[in-house]
Amino acid sequence: MKYIAMNRFKIILGKEEEFEQVWRTRETYLDEVKGFKEFHLLKGESNEEYTLYSSHSVWDSKDDFISWTKSESFKKAHRGAGKNKPLYIGRPMFEGFDVIL
Amino acid sequence: MKYIAMNRFKIILGKEEEFEQVWRTRETYLDEVKGFKEFHLLKGESNEEYTLYSSHSVWDSKDDFISWTKSESFKKAHRGAGKNKPLYIGRPMFEGFDVIL
Repeated sequence: MKYIAMNRFKIILGKEEEFEQVWRTRETYLDEVKGFKEFHLLKGESNEEYTLYSSHSVWDSKDDFISWTKSESFKKAHRGAGKNKPLYIGRPMFEGFDVIL
Repeated sequence: MKYIAMNRFKIILGKEEEFEQVWRTRETYLDEVKGFKEFHLLKGESNEEYTLYSSHSVWDSKDDFISWTKSESFKKAHRGAGKNKPLYIGRPMFEGFDVIL
């Protein structure tokens, strides 16, 4: 069963361009990962506090996704991610979904 | 720019099968709608209160999605949706996203 992994980010107003640039120039090392299908960055609505963004990756199965999170590729892709903290409010919030229909 | 429309539902524990059945048997009238690409129903995690689900439809653009919400097809697809209320906690919560990368 396909699986969609999303990570939600509340980006401080005015920091949107900088946040997008991080993703545009990021090396994800995903292309050779087993079960990985596609990756997108999504931009949601803004309110008075923040603009919502979400990463959106599609996998052949939840197991493939979990294996990736324990892999060396995952570590490499997230190295230095902590230094982007000033761009967002709170922590990124993960949500995973089975594609059932 | 592609657009993803998601509607989040908090389903009362034990009502999951009934909720999925509603979607399985639903006529969405989407296939002939301009700009519509694909539809999926996603199942997220459960906590002590509910199981998270989300509808997930992909569109050629936000404008195509907005036009659909004002159309006769939309009215037809949502006729009677109110009667499923006992299955969920609170209201469905809409989130729309531009696919920027």
